[in-house]
Amino acid sequence: MKLSYNPPRLVTSVEGVECSGLKCEKGGLGLVKCSGRVAGVFTKNKFRAAPVTVTEEHIADGVLEGIIVNSGNANACTGDEGIKNAKRMAEMFAEKLRCDPKDVAVSSTGVIGLQLDMGWIEEMFEKVYPAIDNSEDSSWKFAKSITTTDAFEKQWGLKVGDAVVAGVAKGAGMIAPNMATMLAYVFTDAKVEELDEMLGNAVARTFNAITVDGDTSTNDTVLFVSTGKKKTDEKRIKKALMRVCSVLAEMIAADGEGATKLMRVFVSGARNDDEAHTAAKTIASSILVKTALFGCDANWGRIIAALGYSGVELNEKITLEVTGCKWSAEEAFGLNYDEYELNDELNNKLKNESKTKIKILERGREVGERERVRKIMEVSEVVEFHVDLGIGEGKGCVVGCDLSHDYVELNSKYTT
Amino acid sequence: MKLSYNPPRLVTSVEGVECSGLKCEKGGLGLVKCSGRVAGVFTKNKFRAAPVTVTEEHIADGVLEGIIVNSGNANACTGDEGIKNAKRMAEMFAEKLRCDPKDVAVSSTGVIGLQLDMGWIEEMFEKVYPAIDNSEDSSWKFAKSITTTDAFEKQWGLKVGDAVVAGVAKGAGMIAPNMATMLAYVFTDAKVEELDEMLGNAVARTFNAITVDGDTSTNDTVLFVSTGKKKTDEKRIKKALMRVCSVLAEMIAADGEGATKLMRVFVSGARNDDEAHTAAKTIASSILVKTALFGCDANWGRIIAALGYSGVELNEKITLEVTGCKWSAEEAFGLNYDEYELNDELNNKLKNESKTKIKILERGREVGERERVRKIMEVSEVVEFHVDLGIGEGKGCVVGCDLSHDYVELNSKYTT
Repeated sequence: MKLSYNPPRLVTSVEGVECSGLKCEKGGLGLVKCSGRVAGVFTKNKFRAAPVTVTEEHIADGVLEGIIVNSGNANACTGDEGIKNAKRMAEMFAEKLRCDPKDVAVSSTGVIGLQLDMGWIEEMFEKVYPAIDNSEDSSWKFAKSITTTDAFEKQWGLKVGDAVVAGVAKGAGMIAPNMATMLAYVFTDAKVEELDEMLGNAVARTFNAITVDGDTSTNDTVLFVSTGKKKTDEKRIKKALMRVCSVLAEMIAADGEGATKLMRVFVSGARNDDEAHTAAKTIASSILVKTALFGCDANWGRIIAALGYSGVELNEKITLEVTGCKWSAEEAFGLNYDEYELNDELNNKLKNESKTKIKILERGREVGERERVRKIMEVSEVVEFHVDLGIGEGKGCVVGCDLSHDYVELNSKYTT
Repeated sequence: MKLSYNPPRLVTSVEGVECSGLKCEKGGLGLVKCSGRVAGVFTKNKFRAAPVTVTEEHIADGVLEGIIVNSGNANACTGDEGIKNAKRMAEMFAEKLRCDPKDVAVSSTGVIGLQLDMGWIEEMFEKVYPAIDNSEDSSWKFAKSITTTDAFEKQWGLKVGDAVVAGVAKGAGMIAPNMATMLAYVFTDAKVEELDEMLGNAVARTFNAITVDGDTSTNDTVLFVSTGKKKTDEKRIKKALMRVCSVLAEMIAADGEGATKLMRVFVSGARNDDEAHTAAKTIASSILVKTALFGCDANWGRIIAALGYSGVELNEKITLEVTGCKWSAEEAFGLNYDEYELNDELNNKLKNESKTKIKILERGREVGERERVRKIMEVSEVVEFHVDLGIGEGKGCVVGCDLSHDYVELNSKYTT
């Protein structure tokens, strides 16, 4: 599912950020020069790729000078040689930047279980490094260089007063055969004190609230870098970071293999926010809900069954409403515009476009609108399920996608 | 995936068990007359269908006279009227059996959220009841009457000395639109003291160790009934129950919608049995592993990734072997024949047919047999993954199936 969009700001409009990237048949290599402070969040999969281990160590002191990324080979399950190669990538870039290799972050994405072809990496590096600059074109070249089977490049950013918050990502769908990884790099030129806390908050509500196939990868990495050139209200940066992450995360969900529709599952009335998140994630991950979405079947029994085994507190008085719309970045994760956005004009426009929610279940009783719902599902890029458990104040949103024939096709036919 | 098999014993060969059943377009109705002691295991889904609530209450005293089952309507999410209707079904049968309605178990399977058509149920009952007998034909009619979208009837049994242990089941795949339920009824004419414990053990290793789409239903029910007519060594009955449950459970997994192959995942060397079970279930439930199986892709990276997020203790020294075979009931769950079987001839035959296991990973290193493995996968009805975590003594087996185009087709195109 290819999204059409036009980012208000690019990563190269962040002062102090320069990019370059090149993609060829064998894979890609991308570079970011970004002297500043950094925070990171990494995969919880017990098998961590070598670059994840190396990068976590390199950013422990919070100092960063650059990022080097290759696509095509994940450098995962590669033992000591993998670690050596990841370190060599950092050194390569550090030599040019005249900095400590420990101030360079490294990412890899692609096939698991093969050693990197370091000759090829060095060759690519020599081509990519001289092209580093802060042009718009270079930001897109970097975005492209880190993709594997992504259907489109993912970049989004916002202006916050004088400052900019902008990021680049690559898709998470575990396609052929182990193109596993979600990578995201968000930059700001604003000075930020609490980088770790701010990133942790944003990731919990965005990148950790998407589900494509329920699998997590060996290489997932999110970095947040502040070049510290501008002074801006930190609360506004926090909101902007949340928005940038929410848009990038929805782009990743939309790029789930074979996906034809995005699904936003909003759960309210749960015992607490954690249970709301669990309930929403269980629904959005259910293969049966995903296939029903693909078939535009307003099959509330499957949503009820998923809630029933989600483990959260429930009674039978569940209310379920459905709505659908075209995708727009401004509505990612349904984040409240007042709370997270900065543009009054857009804000007012969205408030006035109240979407029609159609009720399917009211406090446990079917209220019979299946046919109307089917029609809305058929014409929508995004289908939203609003579930009210009617128990407490907990709420949460998880974004997923449908499961289509193309998913099975892509994931079964790959041959190494 | 239709399995061909020939059960050594049918449920009507259990002394004291008589059956009847009828299936028409609207649904089915089946009856079992079985005066004896009973134990039951029920769904853990928080939304329990009315017949589950009623049956759990009715069998609490361990006494059973009969079972009445309808298919086509699950009587789930139906409130007080649903409970009333489930009780009415028990009464209907109890009147004929001249017993307390509380000695009748009730099951339903089919669409969620609709009230039963009690007029139709009574009409069917009047046709089905007079045909109750202990003929082979009646056992198959009962097996058919409880099916919904099952591709074949599921029945299996064994002789143990003078006694018989035999059962009937219906499929668990949550198909159109909420045909959710796994039902299984196992009978023995042997006198059994520890019914509950024996059933609990068997269910944990069989029905709770299959995965079709990861969803559990509102109606899942397993009953174990002893008519107490014969005296037999209880240990032998225990083994026979385990085998009958393992065969019925594999039949259910094989009947997962659109399935073309069964998958047995054996995990050994885990910290303990629970962790082995968790690891095996995570692999067998991974959409990526399931699609790779459909495509006959020996994609070990996906198995490694699934292990990595399963939450069990791991290191990188994993060994993975693959083998494939035709399905045979005697090998269900790979249960050790010496331990669980009773037929020496078959026992010796299986021992002599040693299957070739092909190693893909040896203590974390790929040993490069992908093409050979692909060929084995292509010609096999059952593919076995043998994973050795190399940490402890824990072992377990979970059985699943592949995810095919037909699964998506069946589950997306249904319209109510």
